[in-house]
Amino acid sequence: MAIARTKPGVNAVNSALEAIAALVGERLSTARAVREQHGQDLTWHRGKPPDAVVFAQSADEISGIVKICAEHDLPVIPYGTGTSLEGHISAPYGGVCIDVSQMNAVLRVNAHDMDCTVQPGVTRKQLNEYLRDTGLFFPIDPGADASLGGMTATRASGTNAVRYGTMRENVLSLNAVMADGTLVRTARRARKSAAGYDLTHLLVGSEGTLGVITEVTLRLHGIPEAVSAGVCAFGDVEAACNAVIMTIQSGIPVARIELLDEVQVRCCNAYSDLGLKETPTLFLEFHGSPASVKEQSESFAAIAAEFGAAPFDWATEAEDRNRLWQARHDVFYAVQAMMPGKKGFATDVCVPISRLAECVSETKKDIEALGRIAPIVGHVGDGNFHVSLFADVDDPDDLAECKAFIDRLVARALAMEGTCTGEHGIGQGKTRFLEAEHGEGVRFMRLVKNALDPKNIMNPGKIITA
Amino acid sequence: MAIARTKPGVNAVNSALEAIAALVGERLSTARAVREQHGQDLTWHRGKPPDAVVFAQSADEISGIVKICAEHDLPVIPYGTGTSLEGHISAPYGGVCIDVSQMNAVLRVNAHDMDCTVQPGVTRKQLNEYLRDTGLFFPIDPGADASLGGMTATRASGTNAVRYGTMRENVLSLNAVMADGTLVRTARRARKSAAGYDLTHLLVGSEGTLGVITEVTLRLHGIPEAVSAGVCAFGDVEAACNAVIMTIQSGIPVARIELLDEVQVRCCNAYSDLGLKETPTLFLEFHGSPASVKEQSESFAAIAAEFGAAPFDWATEAEDRNRLWQARHDVFYAVQAMMPGKKGFATDVCVPISRLAECVSETKKDIEALGRIAPIVGHVGDGNFHVSLFADVDDPDDLAECKAFIDRLVARALAMEGTCTGEHGIGQGKTRFLEAEHGEGVRFMRLVKNALDPKNIMNPGKIITA
Repeated sequence: MAIARTKPGVNAVNSALEAIAALVGERLSTARAVREQHGQDLTWHRGKPPDAVVFAQSADEISGIVKICAEHDLPVIPYGTGTSLEGHISAPYGGVCIDVSQMNAVLRVNAHDMDCTVQPGVTRKQLNEYLRDTGLFFPIDPGADASLGGMTATRASGTNAVRYGTMRENVLSLNAVMADGTLVRTARRARKSAAGYDLTHLLVGSEGTLGVITEVTLRLHGIPEAVSAGVCAFGDVEAACNAVIMTIQSGIPVARIELLDEVQVRCCNAYSDLGLKETPTLFLEFHGSPASVKEQSESFAAIAAEFGAAPFDWATEAEDRNRLWQARHDVFYAVQAMMPGKKGFATDVCVPISRLAECVSETKKDIEALGRIAPIVGHVGDGNFHVSLFADVDDPDDLAECKAFIDRLVARALAMEGTCTGEHGIGQGKTRFLEAEHGEGVRFMRLVKNALDPKNIMNPGKIITA
Repeated sequence: MAIARTKPGVNAVNSALEAIAALVGERLSTARAVREQHGQDLTWHRGKPPDAVVFAQSADEISGIVKICAEHDLPVIPYGTGTSLEGHISAPYGGVCIDVSQMNAVLRVNAHDMDCTVQPGVTRKQLNEYLRDTGLFFPIDPGADASLGGMTATRASGTNAVRYGTMRENVLSLNAVMADGTLVRTARRARKSAAGYDLTHLLVGSEGTLGVITEVTLRLHGIPEAVSAGVCAFGDVEAACNAVIMTIQSGIPVARIELLDEVQVRCCNAYSDLGLKETPTLFLEFHGSPASVKEQSESFAAIAAEFGAAPFDWATEAEDRNRLWQARHDVFYAVQAMMPGKKGFATDVCVPISRLAECVSETKKDIEALGRIAPIVGHVGDGNFHVSLFADVDDPDDLAECKAFIDRLVARALAMEGTCTGEHGIGQGKTRFLEAEHGEGVRFMRLVKNALDPKNIMNPGKIITA
């Protein structure tokens, strides 16, 4: 059973856009610049512009738009901040991009229940700014200041996932407009439930291919009483990875444990003026009571010393900590700055942590053999790491070399019982690996997609393709 | 679109059983006693026996059995230990019960990755016994010594969920035989992944209605360096609930925090010889380093005192702790012992913790107004609590009174943004609440069910009904 899709005809498009304009007025744009900006992510993927962009303001409005699109067989592409990395927002079959950036209200904070409900356009930094006086925070932090709707749709994670989980663990419930325009709430606000199929997790990570997310209820966490952070330099990536593995196995509840290889440290030194020794380095953070933070850091220091690390370099002031983590979040831009005129090929894989050192080492050898500059950075406490390639998109040989490298990287991760993507998602960029990873499972994903979106109007060409 | 189902004809049954017998030989039983035992759970639900019971020994065998059942349009009912509570194992349309108790091997423990892979018939106690020398344990502990396949299928939880999560958070991946006999693995062994739809969570909690679970990969946790436990008596349930709420909100990482009301304490005193004061009581346990456990218990003691609790009564010896938690796990049997000749109506709901005190208090008033003995016990750190009713199943008035009570209990929980079941599941017993809880969501659950099991052979009559 194929998931067929063609571009709708001009008449269908025009008739649909007319109906949508009647609904949203001037918040429908067909301006070329707007359309092109909404079809292109940060990476090498050549995005296709949608036929129009709607700046939606409510779930009801989105329901109306999706109903019109369903009637006219027109694709619907949800858009948050456009910071996804695998061609998620491209419109290969045209259609209507639903930009939710104007739906950016924090609807409710239940401090007693440690949860909140937000519209999909609220960004992670905006939410934490809003929460500042509540003693609570939301920990998931992909590099970009992404929207929470987009982070839900791509099952995003970030530096804190090793302690606090990913979007998978932190979305309690969500509202979505399904392919026929029906508005669904996936779960109640209770912390746990055994009532029926888990629609929440079906939508988390579905990348807009099953529904448009219109509201998200998130778990919040108490701001830790004490925080300590710092950096620790190692002789080689293997030693750094092995220190990470032992840290996790020892049950130290580290909040962040991030690896930057020597190439990445060099980029960050240049871009963020860090002045670090250019050697494989771990960025760490510990959360807890003052006593617990002290206990954690001492336990880690003992492990690091065992693997020949330099003494731990503390960032004691909040300002130093923020600078450190801002530099960590800016790695993509740091590498880009070293590669003028080239486009990023950010990619990620995730393996069981016992295979991490091996996977990173083999990948570094592969990079060396190619003679490319391709920094490695990663949420290594989860076994998840990124390689930043940069290519000249007008040079087919350069592109082909990058793609072949990613093929080898994914094959290596899969052979180690890992996944082709830990947090970036499939989008258009990784559809070719889905079968290798999931085998027969893909057939059942396709059955679900066909059942919930029989016309294939929801972000077609992503995850499940024909 | 209805999910139609009728009992298959005698010829279809006979022909299917012949084919299955050719596959499994003497491990197919049609003995009346075996069939009746496999159709009846621990509760008031009047179970219907299947046409036959197969004691399966491998995933391939289960695949073969399901293919035969699909061909003959015969229901398939998976069976672990038969300890579910909402009629999950009853065979209202006959069919073949697949008993997985002989598939009870721990296949692999990856101590470095803190995970393990088990066959579905391994029970939780068996797994922890197996893990004893690894320094790791599996925390999910429903009252019964249930099978891990059954616990996965019902999204079970237990006393440790407040700290370690439920099966939802602890199943990394699973293998299942789908309705056409295909064997699917839902995910790789990496800690996180953004690769496609989350089939793992679709199967967790699907109660055998989407597939038969044949293997489960579980997260394990380090056995804490220090454990302390004890009991704390309160003046009334409201004070106890409010102490729980403040404990959670203060971020104390309590491992277990269980409420027993005075009626439940009386039952446990009688059954497990505990000698506790018969007043609302919290059973608690703290895990961590010795320093952290001390810090946690002191913080809790301060909160309890604020709510007028009696001084904390420590169970310092491992033996005392085990006795305490065994008594907690035996509450169902403790109540049953007080009600000779009656059948249990165990039920559970879960609400946001801010509504817990209110929900428990109103429920106690409802019980008092009925003049029934109905103890309350709960995993109150999650907002989840149980009411144990016991009824004379031959007395229609008695049954009707219990059902009406549960209707009110669920309505109360739903009005407080809670769920009709925190951990028991829907089975046959709670299908009437699914629409009230999920509204339009049920239609999409039905679409998924129809897509993955178009003939409705997988545990029909559970969760999604016509």
